[in-house]
Amino acid sequence: MFDKDVYIRRRRSLLEKMGETAAEGKRGIAVFVGNAEAPAQYRDNCYKWRQDSSWLYFWGLDEPLYGAVIDLDCGEETIFADDQDIDDIVWSGPLPSVRELASKAGVLKTAPYKGLDAVVAKALGQGRRVHFLPPSRYFNTMRFMDLTGWSREDVTAVAPGEGRHASRELVEAVVSLRLIKEECEIVEIDAAGAIGQEMHTVGRLSARPGVKEQEIVGKMEGVTLSKGWGVSFPTILTQHGETLHNHGHDGILEKGRLLVIDAGAESNSHYASDFTRTLPVGGKFSPKQREIYQIVCDANEKAFALTRPGIAYRDVHLAAARVILEGLAAAGLVRGSIDDMVAEGIAGMFMPHGLGHNIGLDVHDMEDLGENLVGYDPDQTRSPQLGLGNLRMARVLKPGHFISNEPGIYFIPALIGQWKSEGRDKGFVNFGKLAEYYDFGGIRLEDDVLVTEDGARRTGPSRLPIQPDDVEAAMQ
Amino acid sequence: MFDKDVYIRRRRSLLEKMGETAAEGKRGIAVFVGNAEAPAQYRDNCYKWRQDSSWLYFWGLDEPLYGAVIDLDCGEETIFADDQDIDDIVWSGPLPSVRELASKAGVLKTAPYKGLDAVVAKALGQGRRVHFLPPSRYFNTMRFMDLTGWSREDVTAVAPGEGRHASRELVEAVVSLRLIKEECEIVEIDAAGAIGQEMHTVGRLSARPGVKEQEIVGKMEGVTLSKGWGVSFPTILTQHGETLHNHGHDGILEKGRLLVIDAGAESNSHYASDFTRTLPVGGKFSPKQREIYQIVCDANEKAFALTRPGIAYRDVHLAAARVILEGLAAAGLVRGSIDDMVAEGIAGMFMPHGLGHNIGLDVHDMEDLGENLVGYDPDQTRSPQLGLGNLRMARVLKPGHFISNEPGIYFIPALIGQWKSEGRDKGFVNFGKLAEYYDFGGIRLEDDVLVTEDGARRTGPSRLPIQPDDVEAAMQ
Repeated sequence: MFDKDVYIRRRRSLLEKMGETAAEGKRGIAVFVGNAEAPAQYRDNCYKWRQDSSWLYFWGLDEPLYGAVIDLDCGEETIFADDQDIDDIVWSGPLPSVRELASKAGVLKTAPYKGLDAVVAKALGQGRRVHFLPPSRYFNTMRFMDLTGWSREDVTAVAPGEGRHASRELVEAVVSLRLIKEECEIVEIDAAGAIGQEMHTVGRLSARPGVKEQEIVGKMEGVTLSKGWGVSFPTILTQHGETLHNHGHDGILEKGRLLVIDAGAESNSHYASDFTRTLPVGGKFSPKQREIYQIVCDANEKAFALTRPGIAYRDVHLAAARVILEGLAAAGLVRGSIDDMVAEGIAGMFMPHGLGHNIGLDVHDMEDLGENLVGYDPDQTRSPQLGLGNLRMARVLKPGHFISNEPGIYFIPALIGQWKSEGRDKGFVNFGKLAEYYDFGGIRLEDDVLVTEDGARRTGPSRLPIQPDDVEAAMQ
Repeated sequence: MFDKDVYIRRRRSLLEKMGETAAEGKRGIAVFVGNAEAPAQYRDNCYKWRQDSSWLYFWGLDEPLYGAVIDLDCGEETIFADDQDIDDIVWSGPLPSVRELASKAGVLKTAPYKGLDAVVAKALGQGRRVHFLPPSRYFNTMRFMDLTGWSREDVTAVAPGEGRHASRELVEAVVSLRLIKEECEIVEIDAAGAIGQEMHTVGRLSARPGVKEQEIVGKMEGVTLSKGWGVSFPTILTQHGETLHNHGHDGILEKGRLLVIDAGAESNSHYASDFTRTLPVGGKFSPKQREIYQIVCDANEKAFALTRPGIAYRDVHLAAARVILEGLAAAGLVRGSIDDMVAEGIAGMFMPHGLGHNIGLDVHDMEDLGENLVGYDPDQTRSPQLGLGNLRMARVLKPGHFISNEPGIYFIPALIGQWKSEGRDKGFVNFGKLAEYYDFGGIRLEDDVLVTEDGARRTGPSRLPIQPDDVEAAMQ
């Protein structure tokens, strides 16, 4: 937890922004609900405790079953939670009182957890606006249904103005704050980066022919649990890199195949890192692998070189797509005007995802607040194309944005088959040559990048090997 | 997943048992709902996938968003799930069809996931009984609310006969099957035991003064992730053993303190193990620690020696409590008639939990089906005493029961203070002497035990060191 001044400052900024949404006396209340424990099996056997990210951002307290209200008209803040009873102490150990914990977040007024219900009911009864963020977890969804008496569809929908829905005004205010990382957050993302890089180093050194994928994943995740909260998302480690989010780990590493490792760590203070490297099992790329690998590597470097304040990340995505198409053209897999291919979104068949996303307390930062509200400026619209349309972060970059840079090339037989049969490639793709790549797999290369005042820098402490010679050398 | 014959046999047994609950034509349908992915942060960033345990037992399929119905009058079985679309294949890789997967569970009839809604609505409309188990996760709770139109309280309550509630008849039938472990399950629990023992060995060898608790936890959990699904419950590793379920890992190991490690593994086929050992940080018990440790060790040995078919585990708990009270009397911490102390539940102040619980697909097997329905024979009632009343498994033992044996002694200042101020010790406790133990911590020693035809055996492959000399030797 940061110093209480951090949380006080953030809430003050939020109050100011929400003050612009309506006249005094018409603003209503903002309601925050922290997470409950999430059962893995029965109710008392839960997954590792993880607090809600927006709760952490504004209130910091890392305990289950907390709620809070900011009265947007008078500024009063209240935290709702219950003190322990003797059973809690026997089973979970003595904790500071709610009042003591609240003071660490700079909040003086506290009340029992269920008191939140009456406060929301009263506000609704008085016709005041009740602002809340769309809930992520099922528990929080049910909690907001109970608090408001509204349906599940209502409490998860985001819209502006009056009505039965989550608050677009609050979403926009929260996004505007969380998008720009503070210095204390950057330190934490770098810390998560250091753990994530150690994970990858352990993974790379374990990636030898004959080893089961699961064994490597266990070693890597052991690192994150020893040094941080754990993984920032379930580790992807697969010789089927063409499957973007492959979570099976049954494979045995085979010499000559490509191993995609997409993995990151969450620090103990819950900031994320997210790196991808693609390794040649056995330590040497084949010429065919190296050719495609180099294209992805060049796209990563090009994207980083362009990343600076003032450029739209959408344009950086398109520049990376261009590098990919140029490389694929040189390899004989596509043919024709590069400009036309970029415009037609031909890169999307090879890279059906966006170049990157925001990183912060969530590894796809704030994704549940709405991908477009988080990742698109008001004057940007989302492309319908595969690939560009999957881009989660398109905004014009500003200092303090922390984003991933993760181009990739994949040969996905089902997708290629669909494009071929539907003619979606518009004649640009050399399907004959492409047939030689059906068992190639996929390659992705990802770094985490901070936009600075005059450019960008990658997360420290150092960079994971990425140039093919360096990767081969690091596997010896 | 086991061979399909296993699931066919289990469902046939279930059908037979449910057939006894009502006349033909009056039995209704049994509805099963598997888990959805559980969001850790936003909806698309989930905790590691874990299927519902009763679903795994009867249907085996380890994928999200499955449902199933058994028509208890005609025996027809249907699995409800959706085949993949092209997006699923791009992101998650190609899977067999629902029809192919269902055939692995021995089910021929399949339908789309949402088809379950119409089947349940039709049955309710016809006035047929709709049997289901009380849901564990919030998603499943909402799913049953949607399926039935009933309230959250209704779908989570268990009662017999008609009405808006989960089915006690189905709970009892499921418990009667899952309580007695089949040979194929015993193999899996032993496999989980082997991983759990390796975890503990890694933990013991890492437990040196100056090391952070979290570092040891990470190493241990890395083992479970490399060899199995992961932990069977969040690891307890603490120098505050007096807190029964301490999940903080911030402490630095200090020479001379006791370290409680309560940890287990879940195998890749989702069976659990659960072991506790208590280690002297620095490698040597003090005489005071050794005296209390030996009492707990003796209680563990006594309980195991008594474990066999025909004895109630409630009586084994009481025998362990007697060993603890005799030992505490010898140490001068209690005084008076041991018989009277056992009867008055004085052991509960030192061991405020039960001797053990069932182990299987859940580490507290079937806990959400109702502790009393799972752990108590129909003619047994639960004690109101602290300790004995917390016993989760009281039943008369039968071959195939797999249970934990985990006596402990804890010095919990808040609890001791409560008993002293309320006179709950009835004069048996020597509070003066006890004051010397306020900073002692706690000791727990736990094995997993299978009840066999003529006695009991512990999970293999070997036993973790437990006698104090052996523990000290194993820490060198």
